[in-house]
Amino acid sequence: MAQAQRRRNGNIGNIGNGSECKEKELLLLRERSDSEGQGHQQQQQQQRLNLTTRGSLNNNAKATMVTVLAMAMLLLLFYSSSTSTSTSTSTSASTSASTRITTPSTTGTSDEALSISDADADAVINLDHGDPTMFEPFWKNAGDKSTVVIPGWHTMSYFSDTSNLCWFLEPDFANQVRRLHRIVGNAVTHAHHIIVGVGSTQLIHALLFALSATDTHHPVSVVSAAPFYSMYPGITDFLKSGLFRWAGDATSFKVNGSSSFIEIVCSPNNPDGTLRRAVLSTEAGKLVHDLAYYWPQYTPMRGPADEDIMLFTVSKATGHAGTRIGWALVRDADVARRMVKFIEMNSIGVSKDSQVRAARILQVISDGYELPDPDSTTRFFHFSRRLLADRWQRLRRAVEESGRFSLPQFSSEFCEFTKEHAETYPAFAWLRCVDESIEDCEGFFKSVKVLTRSGRHFGAGPEYIRISMLDRAHNFDLFVERIASLGLG
Amino acid sequence: MAQAQRRRNGNIGNIGNGSECKEKELLLLRERSDSEGQGHQQQQQQQRLNLTTRGSLNNNAKATMVTVLAMAMLLLLFYSSSTSTSTSTSTSASTSASTRITTPSTTGTSDEALSISDADADAVINLDHGDPTMFEPFWKNAGDKSTVVIPGWHTMSYFSDTSNLCWFLEPDFANQVRRLHRIVGNAVTHAHHIIVGVGSTQLIHALLFALSATDTHHPVSVVSAAPFYSMYPGITDFLKSGLFRWAGDATSFKVNGSSSFIEIVCSPNNPDGTLRRAVLSTEAGKLVHDLAYYWPQYTPMRGPADEDIMLFTVSKATGHAGTRIGWALVRDADVARRMVKFIEMNSIGVSKDSQVRAARILQVISDGYELPDPDSTTRFFHFSRRLLADRWQRLRRAVEESGRFSLPQFSSEFCEFTKEHAETYPAFAWLRCVDESIEDCEGFFKSVKVLTRSGRHFGAGPEYIRISMLDRAHNFDLFVERIASLGLG
Repeated sequence: MAQAQRRRNGNIGNIGNGSECKEKELLLLRERSDSEGQGHQQQQQQQRLNLTTRGSLNNNAKATMVTVLAMAMLLLLFYSSSTSTSTSTSTSASTSASTRITTPSTTGTSDEALSISDADADAVINLDHGDPTMFEPFWKNAGDKSTVVIPGWHTMSYFSDTSNLCWFLEPDFANQVRRLHRIVGNAVTHAHHIIVGVGSTQLIHALLFALSATDTHHPVSVVSAAPFYSMYPGITDFLKSGLFRWAGDATSFKVNGSSSFIEIVCSPNNPDGTLRRAVLSTEAGKLVHDLAYYWPQYTPMRGPADEDIMLFTVSKATGHAGTRIGWALVRDADVARRMVKFIEMNSIGVSKDSQVRAARILQVISDGYELPDPDSTTRFFHFSRRLLADRWQRLRRAVEESGRFSLPQFSSEFCEFTKEHAETYPAFAWLRCVDESIEDCEGFFKSVKVLTRSGRHFGAGPEYIRISMLDRAHNFDLFVERIASLGLG
Repeated sequence: MAQAQRRRNGNIGNIGNGSECKEKELLLLRERSDSEGQGHQQQQQQQRLNLTTRGSLNNNAKATMVTVLAMAMLLLLFYSSSTSTSTSTSTSASTSASTRITTPSTTGTSDEALSISDADADAVINLDHGDPTMFEPFWKNAGDKSTVVIPGWHTMSYFSDTSNLCWFLEPDFANQVRRLHRIVGNAVTHAHHIIVGVGSTQLIHALLFALSATDTHHPVSVVSAAPFYSMYPGITDFLKSGLFRWAGDATSFKVNGSSSFIEIVCSPNNPDGTLRRAVLSTEAGKLVHDLAYYWPQYTPMRGPADEDIMLFTVSKATGHAGTRIGWALVRDADVARRMVKFIEMNSIGVSKDSQVRAARILQVISDGYELPDPDSTTRFFHFSRRLLADRWQRLRRAVEESGRFSLPQFSSEFCEFTKEHAETYPAFAWLRCVDESIEDCEGFFKSVKVLTRSGRHFGAGPEYIRISMLDRAHNFDLFVERIASLGLG
């Protein structure tokens, strides 16, 4: 089962693994599906309680409405307890479960609160991909103010704003992107076009198209310093485009005066969390800065990035991977225009529903810092940072006690956002098997039912694995428990 | 201005036009933007009125809640009239307008109700692309039951259903797709996998990848019988893939025993509305059936299609182009799996918010036919068909009176869905300039400020143009008025 699950998830963001998943393997995944299905049932019940109080009414209006809405809530509470069908955004849920449900905590307390049962000892723990479900508790706690309401006749047109170069960009989403960057101070936006994409993945495709020449027979070389994000090679090569081709590790790439290149700089880097700068001269090539993880929960803010091309995604910024919204900040109008051309040809724009939702999510985060009386439950980055700090502390302790593994070390830096010295807590643990009896680190962890991604997919060696730090609390707790049990002692 | 607007919109779905739009042109598009902006403001006011009554509460619960919710509505009405900021899904709106606002009718009556003012005589009418805003009145009329409510913590994961081959497919959306096909009787679904995509555009890309061999140096030829949808050549060729290449009109394609091909069969056909069958032998190649327009508002239903690969999209089925949701019905599991692989690499799945919304929209249509007491305002296809019948009748009259143009003729057929003989009312008018003094039909209409798409983009001659029949009522009214003024008499 572990092997099947590994291969299944290896297809997502792991293009080094070219094998197609087989149908029989899918049956083996029901374990996770069932667990998630029950989570959905709980979500649906909570959702019915939320039906009346949503929207961004101002405080005065809210105060006026309290009495009436409270009555409506009571009726809905009665309604929700009397029926289990007909939800406003229903998702079918499996009814049987073979594993314990991983339910997000709604209190915002440390992961430590969950205990490990004997039944969990045999569970497969999938930390292969970076599914950011860790952030669910914050959004549960945020409640109605993070809810979006979309009437059936809203945003039906292809067009969002024909006065904008990016005609499918919802203006409110663009406004909230600029506002959040201003508050966090992680990127300048005033001189940049915003291009929205179906996640930052579509935007990387768009950039490869935008930065390559269509009138040449020589595809442009695409490079990134190893260890590099495992999807970059596949994104570049899987359609065998004549416009661009993957050329591997940027540090070993020989710049040829007559041909151009594109260097993707991921900072903080996926998989190893290090801050990065371009390793090649930019005179001959073009740079794409993938800043998906340059947010205060992961790393101290060193001031606003001001690169020509910067990529972000709500998936890693806020945890909303299912919303599939990323954005590029692009200084050059011609590059922006060619990206828009790509997205027209690829998908004729980007879901307006998701842009509307992403705008609301970003707004809630910004409001949490700008509206009066912020506290620990309304400040997203503080909340998330505490969770990650706790996880990293426990993982480091377990790794140290094992004596067989090592993790990267990061120095404390001053964070311009929190105005205090802060540690680095990457979204992934780039773990090395230092025990020489372990030749294949991924295989070793697979043997103890922990699914990770081998360093080989990142241009590194099999002694490395990448481990998601962003899964739900219970899965992470199981993982730390299991790694602690692998010690030599 | 006409030329600028033509070029701007020519970028959308018109790959024959390779020129990039220029920034100065965008300024000229404010006319349309301003008009739409004011439409948004009206939408926002309506939306505030909708804040309390949404979700799919059953009738019993609704009855119980009427008193309390009515009180909440009154308060919200007061609130909405006292402030113009803070909406639940806001979109920025321009404040100045240089053209008359095109406001969708909410009554479901004929387009004829609108009158043409003198000021409209000089307006640019953009019917180049098939933006399906014609359907807005139905969804306004449908009211709260078509509204979706998505809490902030909902559908955050990348995964929708890991037990499904298409792991990013929301189960409720899949259920509603199968239900609607069963009710309408336009496609079989029981033996097919459903693959969701970012519109059917992404699914065509996915199919080209899925149906081509990765282990060959010979790209597979992609063909479609002319006149073919203007995006097919560009989708196929714009990345210069080594896997597939556009080979033009299927009727002139020579099947070579040693090489394969993919024939795209669009039926009813975009641009000319004809029903189509494959023109090449399927033994040597593979068929993709693009059935985007095989719905009862456009054409009589001749029974369920049962092809190996069938494509649909909410854009043309329900009018929700901005939602960017399409689906493929795919019989072969290996093809379906490779499509999933493409979507993983292209965008790591498809917006769950849009799937949730599309599920609700399809549900409302199905409920309109299956729940008790259907009437003309709840039966989407009947409503839409009436609008299209009225438009086609008026267009045919104006064309006939002009003496300079012609339109395709269709015979009446028995519709298995409505159980009566029915006419064909395509989403596009495939108009021919029969007046020999007109060499370039698109250019002629451009000179009178009607933006259309030349037959050249569809593999046909410049005597043809494609005209959208799906725009908002006022734009269509202006168009009919203008064409009537072009007569020889």
